Amino acid sequence: MAGSTFGEAFKITTFGESHGVSVGVIVEGVTPGVELDEAYIQVQMDRRKPGQSAVTSPRKEYDVIRIVSGMFEGRTTGTPLCILLDNKDMRPSAYDGMDETFRPGHADYTYLKKYGIRDHRGSGRASGRETAARVAAGAVARKLLEDRGVRVVAYTKEIGGIACRTYQPDEIEKNSVRACDPEAAGWMEDYVKTLVARGDSAGGIVECRISGAAAGLGEPVFDKLDADLAKAMLSVGAVKGIEFGAGFAAAGMLGSEHNDGMNADGFLSNHAGGILGGISTGADIVFRVAVKPTSSISSPQQTVTTQGEERTIRTEGRHDPCICPRVVPVIEAMACLVLEDHYKRQAALHG
Amino acid sequence: MAGSTFGEAFKITTFGESHGVSVGVIVEGVTPGVELDEAYIQVQMDRRKPGQSAVTSPRKEYDVIRIVSGMFEGRTTGTPLCILLDNKDMRPSAYDGMDETFRPGHADYTYLKKYGIRDHRGSGRASGRETAARVAAGAVARKLLEDRGVRVVAYTKEIGGIACRTYQPDEIEKNSVRACDPEAAGWMEDYVKTLVARGDSAGGIVECRISGAAAGLGEPVFDKLDADLAKAMLSVGAVKGIEFGAGFAAAGMLGSEHNDGMNADGFLSNHAGGILGGISTGADIVFRVAVKPTSSISSPQQTVTTQGEERTIRTEGRHDPCICPRVVPVIEAMACLVLEDHYKRQAALHG
Amino acid sequence: MAGSTFGEAFKITTFGESHGVSVGVIVEGVTPGVELDEAYIQVQMDRRKPGQSAVTSPRKEYDVIRIVSGMFEGRTTGTPLCILLDNKDMRPSAYDGMDETFRPGHADYTYLKKYGIRDHRGSGRASGRETAARVAAGAVARKLLEDRGVRVVAYTKEIGGIACRTYQPDEIEKNSVRACDPEAAGWMEDYVKTLVARGDSAGGIVECRISGAAAGLGEPVFDKLDADLAKAMLSVGAVKGIEFGAGFAAAGMLGSEHNDGMNADGFLSNHAGGILGGISTGADIVFRVAVKPTSSISSPQQTVTTQGEERTIRTEGRHDPCICPRVVPVIEAMACLVLEDHYKRQAALHG
Amino acid sequence: MAGSTFGEAFKITTFGESHGVSVGVIVEGVTPGVELDEAYIQVQMDRRKPGQSAVTSPRKEYDVIRIVSGMFEGRTTGTPLCILLDNKDMRPSAYDGMDETFRPGHADYTYLKKYGIRDHRGSGRASGRETAARVAAGAVARKLLEDRGVRVVAYTKEIGGIACRTYQPDEIEKNSVRACDPEAAGWMEDYVKTLVARGDSAGGIVECRISGAAAGLGEPVFDKLDADLAKAMLSVGAVKGIEFGAGFAAAGMLGSEHNDGMNADGFLSNHAGGILGGISTGADIVFRVAVKPTSSISSPQQTVTTQGEERTIRTEGRHDPCICPRVVPVIEAMACLVLEDHYKRQAALHG
Repeated sequence: MAGSTFGEAFKITTFGESHGVSVGVIVEGVTPGVELDEAYIQVQMDRRKPGQSAVTSPRKEYDVIRIVSGMFEGRTTGTPLCILLDNKDMRPSAYDGMDETFRPGHADYTYLKKYGIRDHRGSGRASGRETAARVAAGAVARKLLEDRGVRVVAYTKEIGGIACRTYQPDEIEKNSVRACDPEAAGWMEDYVKTLVARGDSAGGIVECRISGAAAGLGEPVFDKLDADLAKAMLSVGAVKGIEFGAGFAAAGMLGSEHNDGMNADGFLSNHAGGILGGISTGADIVFRVAVKPTSSISSPQQTVTTQGEERTIRTEGRHDPCICPRVVPVIEAMACLVLEDHYKRQAALHG
Repeated sequence: MAGSTFGEAFKITTFGESHGVSVGVIVEGVTPGVELDEAYIQVQMDRRKPGQSAVTSPRKEYDVIRIVSGMFEGRTTGTPLCILLDNKDMRPSAYDGMDETFRPGHADYTYLKKYGIRDHRGSGRASGRETAARVAAGAVARKLLEDRGVRVVAYTKEIGGIACRTYQPDEIEKNSVRACDPEAAGWMEDYVKTLVARGDSAGGIVECRISGAAAGLGEPVFDKLDADLAKAMLSVGAVKGIEFGAGFAAAGMLGSEHNDGMNADGFLSNHAGGILGGISTGADIVFRVAVKPTSSISSPQQTVTTQGEERTIRTEGRHDPCICPRVVPVIEAMACLVLEDHYKRQAALHG
Repeated sequence: MAGSTFGEAFKITTFGESHGVSVGVIVEGVTPGVELDEAYIQVQMDRRKPGQSAVTSPRKEYDVIRIVSGMFEGRTTGTPLCILLDNKDMRPSAYDGMDETFRPGHADYTYLKKYGIRDHRGSGRASGRETAARVAAGAVARKLLEDRGVRVVAYTKEIGGIACRTYQPDEIEKNSVRACDPEAAGWMEDYVKTLVARGDSAGGIVECRISGAAAGLGEPVFDKLDADLAKAMLSVGAVKGIEFGAGFAAAGMLGSEHNDGMNADGFLSNHAGGILGGISTGADIVFRVAVKPTSSISSPQQTVTTQGEERTIRTEGRHDPCICPRVVPVIEAMACLVLEDHYKRQAALHG
Repeated sequence: MAGSTFGEAFKITTFGESHGVSVGVIVEGVTPGVELDEAYIQVQMDRRKPGQSAVTSPRKEYDVIRIVSGMFEGRTTGTPLCILLDNKDMRPSAYDGMDETFRPGHADYTYLKKYGIRDHRGSGRASGRETAARVAAGAVARKLLEDRGVRVVAYTKEIGGIACRTYQPDEIEKNSVRACDPEAAGWMEDYVKTLVARGDSAGGIVECRISGAAAGLGEPVFDKLDADLAKAMLSVGAVKGIEFGAGFAAAGMLGSEHNDGMNADGFLSNHAGGILGGISTGADIVFRVAVKPTSSISSPQQTVTTQGEERTIRTEGRHDPCICPRVVPVIEAMACLVLEDHYKRQAALHG
């Protein structure tokens, strides 16, 4: 009901504001007896953290996680796993005055409308910092999926109109924008640096590819695998759209083109993106999300105060000119959570 | 867990296969004391039913609903409202042989992989017939939303590359494709008729516009309004993507373009699609879904049997060459369900 | 949220009022591929139905069930199973005047307070008729449990102070009060007939014994097996209390008495009632519920109208002088639902 | 699914083992804008903590809570409230050898059976320490209920057969056993001290009385107010039974005795315990729970090792000879959680 819980058989609940004491997550339904350590999770945290390169925010969020429950002698116990991240780089003074003015593109206005009260420090609960908790939980799911032979990889497909033309998975972690094409990556990096200079930001497209997933995952008719993935992705702040397989291009295709035929070796194409009738086919699950340009820009923008007075605002501070490279591990984390949940739900159905 | 339930405070559970005895829905959490009658619901059923025009399937599904519980003397009682639709036009013989061959684009293969058993008659549970139950439940939500001053309208925006150029809401129900531009509607109708002759099908884009919704709806961080709408829409069989406001176009925009400024009268633009931080802004909520071309086509397609033998298949029968016009009321129904649920969740938060 | 759903991995949703068109239930999460037929379910329906003997209500409820979805060629498909019971013996005129007077011990007053509107015909949704839907769903769970080797048996332990002194399971279905001691059964039957003559009613105690259940069922810390059983039982209208194993007697015991020791063959006693820390031990699960005397009696009682005017009321009609024998199959059904749900949840945890 | 979440509209999720790093709770659905401080919550923590008197365990659990999210400038924000309690008095060495022997009456055996792995330090997740998280969350609910005029009071009614004969609410917090009758309290205290000397323990009965609750709370047919209270109470480790109003005594009453008549001033008695048809009547809600004798006793007991070898065990350490006085605040906390949840659910239904 209250919105901070995701998943059913494998379930997470996150808490925490960007400038509160801690953010964290409880992971429920973890298979007992699995070897896990903080270092494994930390790898993913480091992929999401700010300050990784010139194209990401130089803030230091101290994303050092601590597992405070659910483990015993290096193994999961099956009881709730709580992972904490303490906030240390809090500079509430950096947000002085922000309690009175609605930043365009931010949730300032809507949080006040919803709750009647708002923690304005660094966007409070609406901050991207909350996704750190998701990445931590996603790493736990990733561990379980690895044991199932499932691999989840996301990457930047496009930034500001510059698109990858090749898919070279080994290149993704080698460039600062996490693009799957090193040549496009170079153009993207240059473009993003230009934006920093101009005080502006850019959006992009992130693609995710899941290989090795079993056929049969997904629960018709509402908890279809694509439906749950769509919810998971749209719950990420900057995401404004999602498409599976051929996606929006399917709108312009004929049935005879779009249908994926089969022969004795399997599917002849994958316009469906690995999901038919909401259930995985065993082919790669492929989807793309639209990432909006970062809302915080130092260019002047027109807005109003909580009293309705008109203002011009510049959002100074340490912000990402394009959030795509840091969204990549969040997309992967959410995909891992959905997949692991559906594996367990399938086990329950037949259990 | 099992996937046939949607919503929390306003919740539906559907059941039924296309060629079983009945399909239906239980609606829980209905505000008590509301005047409601079967005729009000039937109006929406008739918009979804097949055989409305030359561009839709000539099947007769007998979508005549019966409310069998939850009402007393013309008013809702607050107890579960069960709405039944009996299946009457069952022709299981039309599906002879389908138990052995996987139809491309259909859920035949995945249902068998998931359940190990499959009701092959008319797609069974994976049939579009199941959406009749959603439309019935959506009509109940629509009634409650009307009393709140909320209006939900969907329409065909594009079919096979032919796009509407104007938005004329009064025209939507006047043309057989439910397009919002009468001129484009004419072109679409001609195109769809051509497809029938060719034994092929087309996809399209359906847009939905929700006006009058209060600011403050949506539950961060996972049950964001857009996240729940995305799940709702992707749970509809033919939908392969969704985008809110500027959507995928945002990927190519600058932050200074995409951010919606404000002045004393409100928002200066609506690139966000009426949702910021997962919470409604009070502006129109606008999203588009990608609808794939109907999978059932009479052109020959390559496939395999359950035994792995290769076959060429033609899906004969009474199918929609483009499902967009009949998806429109389903999209509206799902949107109504999400909105009403979030109104009630907001009431709980402050209650 | 709305209260008509029970269970998670194996989940039911009931609907229907006693004098509406139908009552019924949707069962989700049913293992696919299981042989099931209506006759199997009907056996349990017949144990619950009124008019079985002189000690139960002579009403005929026509508890003939129909499965309208979720089955294909005699097997479950894994999709929602909907079971319907049409109401046929409706005599709304028998309830004339009841819309204005609150019957003591009934939910008339509270339904009106809660919903602001009330279907007064035969208690509407608060009627014992709703438990028919539970028994139907419970029979589905019972079928799955049989395949696991689990046996669920309930029986009348005590009526009006007359208690069983022996436990003879084979005798339970042979006497009209479903007591486990034939001698006590005779005394109970005589007592209940006396009550009919006096226009009064009696309460009793029903005990339930579950054998063959695996160790390891139950989900700490809130969804303990005993916690879920307690909720299930207290959700049955007439039940006012529950105790496990030694139960309330444990309040007077010493730790050294109450603790169940172990030796190489297992537990030396079963004061815990087969549950430790909320998880099944593998020993028999044993609990007892307190059943209140039937509220509908023909003796005069003091009450008020909806307008607050004082009245003397006699609840005429066809009522059970003691509901215990008909509660027995309902208790069993609820126990089956809880057990099967926890089997599936355990499968998910390790899945 | 996973069992560590309770409630729907007002929902808690607990985590933590007795000898892990921390225990804690996330509270979701908290009404925004409510003044709250740690001191308010700490009052309840101190009522539950060990070492309060000669009759409770001398362990020091350092139940000092920290709110790490969901608050801003002394008010709730409506986002998840996380409350942490760090464990400081960990003495894992005190549990040496316990990994191999099942303590009678404890969850050692069942945790191993369920999870295949077990944190044996101080019972791990099965420890009473987990209830500290509940008491913290319950205090938040209590605060909201106070604003609604609801008062929740529990007290020891009976220990080892010694029963209170009067109800003097002002006396409850004045004696070490939290009895509602100061004379009985004296006898109980003496009795408990005797048990300490004998290395044994006693059970008891705790009663709870909720006054000021509105009529209309509870969601038929499964989430009845008494059903949810029953689940809440049975989820507390030591509780083995619950009864409402007349409870098990109702089994021996006539309908004409048990039914609560009404006159113009309201109900003439309260055998129903303030709940009819699962919905609150507005009268005091009254229930009693059976508390088993503490399982940890220093008397020798017969048990086995994980290898099935027979052993005699004495559970040395710092244990409560009777847990009733410390269960009292836990019972109150759980009752507060249920009540607040149902207030919010009622708001959703009508919202």
